[in-house]
Amino acid sequence: MARWEPNAPERLANAALDLFAERGYENTTVIDIAQRAGLAKTTFFRHFQDKREVLFGRGTVNELLAEATAAAPATAGPLEAVAHALDAAGRQVFTSERREFIARRQAVIAANPELREREALKNLALIASMVDALKRRGVPELTARVAAELGALASTIAYERWSQTTAGEDFGEIARQALDDVQASTAFC
Amino acid sequence: MARWEPNAPERLANAALDLFAERGYENTTVIDIAQRAGLAKTTFFRHFQDKREVLFGRGTVNELLAEATAAAPATAGPLEAVAHALDAAGRQVFTSERREFIARRQAVIAANPELREREALKNLALIASMVDALKRRGVPELTARVAAELGALASTIAYERWSQTTAGEDFGEIARQALDDVQASTAFC
Repeated sequence: MARWEPNAPERLANAALDLFAERGYENTTVIDIAQRAGLAKTTFFRHFQDKREVLFGRGTVNELLAEATAAAPATAGPLEAVAHALDAAGRQVFTSERREFIARRQAVIAANPELREREALKNLALIASMVDALKRRGVPELTARVAAELGALASTIAYERWSQTTAGEDFGEIARQALDDVQASTAFC
Repeated sequence: MARWEPNAPERLANAALDLFAERGYENTTVIDIAQRAGLAKTTFFRHFQDKREVLFGRGTVNELLAEATAAAPATAGPLEAVAHALDAAGRQVFTSERREFIARRQAVIAANPELREREALKNLALIASMVDALKRRGVPELTARVAAELGALASTIAYERWSQTTAGEDFGEIARQALDDVQASTAFC
């Protein structure tokens, strides 16, 4: 069932998830998605480049994380700045309201190799934008790369933990704990 | 120009690289590749699932790294076991003889988003197989994940450095230095 949020990208993404679940990713067209969302095909292409992109069109997430990294206190070390970015993700991406949508999205991606490829590349872009944001804070290149990789791993672990909690737990707090755990583990490597 | 190595997968991969460079990835078919390699289309599909796979068919690399990780001395810590895997990669993958092939392959992948997606997913599979190999050595889950990520980053950095050296330098040695650098950087995160 399509939901009637006012916002076109979210409506299209929800319609796509419904259809992918009902008839499979391969058997769903852009026209199907637009129709289900009650929108025109041209509206779809105003927001997304192709069918796969409907689940990934949040280019804003990279900017959100980069901005939050930049906005961390000047005294914050690299992983502390990453923690600020994960806090921002918790406030704007991994919210209680989006929990179900995110879980359905992850299930569809996990079931489809093409989507897993797209996600893997998107994650590399996200890590690259974190590296840039850290370098702009004056963090040396190599340290920035290590911190961004550790941050990405902490974010993955935090997502795993968050999706297993009961609704209402704060992603940012879980992510901070995951970052601490990851950082502590480096001593045993 | 196709090269006439005895070995079909390498011949097909070289033919594919030639054609991708000459006429672009999009304008090359599996039949073109097989013809250029002087082999039948059926031979192509015996070795690779599709056109993209011709540059990634080395599923054996995962096994090579996992075996080398397993074969590291029992006293070796997680990153020391990863160093053994990178040594093995230096002996069997990143060799002087394969330098030019690898550079051409990387250039083609970098120029094509579809190939970059496939590579990103392959790298995730490689990291997952390193995590498993470390866990089989008794390394706790979280530490194994951190060590595998740090190893993957060190491997990327080592490849960057190796490809900029003059031919003849040992990848394994460069990788060991990169691992040391990465590990040292964790203290500044």
